[in-house]
Amino acid sequence: MNRDQDDLDEDFIKLSSKTLDLPETKISSMLNQRVLQKVSGSYPDYYRFEKGISGFEAGTAVFKHGDNILVVKGFPKIQRAIVLEPAIKVHFEGSSSIAIEEKMNGYNVRIVCFDGKVIALTRGGLICPYTTEKVTDEIGHDFFQAHPNLVLCGEMVGPDNPYVPKNIYPDVKSVSMFIFDIREKTTGKPLTIEKKYELCTRFNIKTVRYYGEYPIQSAAEIITKIIKELGEEDREGVVIKDPGMNHPAIKYTCSQSTNNDLKYAFQFYNDYGRDFFFSRVIREGFQSVEWDDNEEALHDRCCRLGESIIKPMVETIKKRKQGERIAEDVRIRVNNLETAWQFEDHLKRLGVDAQFEEPVFENGQYLILIRKINKSTNDRTSALLDGQLW
Amino acid sequence: MNRDQDDLDEDFIKLSSKTLDLPETKISSMLNQRVLQKVSGSYPDYYRFEKGISGFEAGTAVFKHGDNILVVKGFPKIQRAIVLEPAIKVHFEGSSSIAIEEKMNGYNVRIVCFDGKVIALTRGGLICPYTTEKVTDEIGHDFFQAHPNLVLCGEMVGPDNPYVPKNIYPDVKSVSMFIFDIREKTTGKPLTIEKKYELCTRFNIKTVRYYGEYPIQSAAEIITKIIKELGEEDREGVVIKDPGMNHPAIKYTCSQSTNNDLKYAFQFYNDYGRDFFFSRVIREGFQSVEWDDNEEALHDRCCRLGESIIKPMVETIKKRKQGERIAEDVRIRVNNLETAWQFEDHLKRLGVDAQFEEPVFENGQYLILIRKINKSTNDRTSALLDGQLW
Repeated sequence: MNRDQDDLDEDFIKLSSKTLDLPETKISSMLNQRVLQKVSGSYPDYYRFEKGISGFEAGTAVFKHGDNILVVKGFPKIQRAIVLEPAIKVHFEGSSSIAIEEKMNGYNVRIVCFDGKVIALTRGGLICPYTTEKVTDEIGHDFFQAHPNLVLCGEMVGPDNPYVPKNIYPDVKSVSMFIFDIREKTTGKPLTIEKKYELCTRFNIKTVRYYGEYPIQSAAEIITKIIKELGEEDREGVVIKDPGMNHPAIKYTCSQSTNNDLKYAFQFYNDYGRDFFFSRVIREGFQSVEWDDNEEALHDRCCRLGESIIKPMVETIKKRKQGERIAEDVRIRVNNLETAWQFEDHLKRLGVDAQFEEPVFENGQYLILIRKINKSTNDRTSALLDGQLW
Repeated sequence: MNRDQDDLDEDFIKLSSKTLDLPETKISSMLNQRVLQKVSGSYPDYYRFEKGISGFEAGTAVFKHGDNILVVKGFPKIQRAIVLEPAIKVHFEGSSSIAIEEKMNGYNVRIVCFDGKVIALTRGGLICPYTTEKVTDEIGHDFFQAHPNLVLCGEMVGPDNPYVPKNIYPDVKSVSMFIFDIREKTTGKPLTIEKKYELCTRFNIKTVRYYGEYPIQSAAEIITKIIKELGEEDREGVVIKDPGMNHPAIKYTCSQSTNNDLKYAFQFYNDYGRDFFFSRVIREGFQSVEWDDNEEALHDRCCRLGESIIKPMVETIKKRKQGERIAEDVRIRVNNLETAWQFEDHLKRLGVDAQFEEPVFENGQYLILIRKINKSTNDRTSALLDGQLW
């Protein structure tokens, strides 16, 4: 087996060297360091970049198809405006206008067609079997038959979303894909906003809300208004783009979304990175100054933040005190039970400790509840309740 | 010069090997890795442990005096109870009673006598020239003439304290030392509580507030009452000790002190570690559960936390927006200007960017204002206000 493995890798190294424009020794060393990782599973074997390196974003996937190497570039990190007005001016310097789209709260997916099959890649470059079933149903093959070299990038949202379940989109009862970018497979180069909407309209593909194009001078004011409205609906925020997509996009989010993130994460306070908390707190401080909060608005913002931090943590501690296990309950809804078991393997690969309940057959689909166990928060909370020192 | 340096180190390595009970090769390698660092300055050269290693706490100082090696053990880290009642039961298992002392809010100092001079070591094992002047005045030599092998460990508190200036102790108008431990120089072994108070009384040395000895069963209840009272006075908390000092002490602090720490640190949000914020937030969550906060108390705790985080950050951002430099103003009061310049060198050694104002002669002493510049917060705040993305 090892021998075969090595042979396969040798083959891959030779073939990918040209397509990736990297020396064979570089590819070998990336494989050795596991920056580039082979992914074996029920789908065709492929490779993914675990970290960004040599011009390849983290999550870039590399498929070997016969003697051909197919690259799907990772989705670039979208940087965040902390102070909206200067960030727009500095970042889009030279542009006369910007386009505003809604940033939805779900998980980032790239959809490609490989060897005649529609495949959904997560941000990290893993094929998600659950998402793949969903997008095969929802998007289908037509688009890819006409445009095999394009990638549909979108947000998968809704309550039957097992990564970031949210019930904030009234039109999404289960889980649904909203496209925000169309990009070239190999280069990752995005189509212009205009071209993207033209194709999505033609193929009847749902997109995220588009607020239109605005002169750069009035952008911050308009976005502030949009952000306040979105916040009231508990929606996440906006992505600000150059209409020609010649600049990277930037994002800006609502205070309510920041607080919802914190509420969620503080239930599992020991499982989340400390940067997660810190960066969100900083956003609130700067938004308060940019919006020139009066005394009452500032007081409300402070109480909201404090409650988003302490209340979920208190709930967790109380639950644990009563012997409950701290877990996040999510669910999936599949046509095919095989998809569920493949998804179970996928979560294992991600290192998630998840318990799948018995499937319930409902309206022609299987609903499966999944308990994700937050081991670190469980263990830490118990230990502290039992007198562990810090 | 290098030659001399090497000779000196060789000499030190040979001599200290016996006293520290470590092989010469180990000492060499610790010096090479700078875990053990030579400190040169206006005082006799000595060595300090920058990190804890081989049974020596960080801050352990090693003096060479002729052919003798004198070790002053570092002050051990005091662990914190997060949930008071079980922490006491588990930690002091087997003890029938515990002693309660106030934990004061200042900086930790070890006072020793070396070669006839009283010297103050900071937690990190550096001789602080300012503290040395203060304790030479306040404590003097009598104690050390009788007990040359003992170390006085105490908290230096008050508004003229340039590390952690606080105006919360009504009796301290300038800066003053309160002893909480007496330990053996070489071993770090503490005297019992009884012996400590006996010596401090005999030599008229001020100690931290002593609340007395209590049965272990009622300790948590009594400490909770004390903590609530201390909190109302904005004082820090308590240290809980085994009367015979056979267990390490543990600490527990007031919610108000946690909030005051946060208020202070969020003024300089980018200069403080993210763990600083996180660990304080966790304390609040567990205290809320242990104290069984009702809805109103929980709401107040949340608002207090949010205000401690956001308000100082907002003030900092506003100041910076108006072009002000973010700095912490502290002050020292010295008898001798030479002490001030030595203290300036000391801060440089610590990597603190500090501006010393012109000394003002006042009641026989020199008052010097010091502006400590928080470079990271200044730079980050400016950059974000100028549109930098995150």
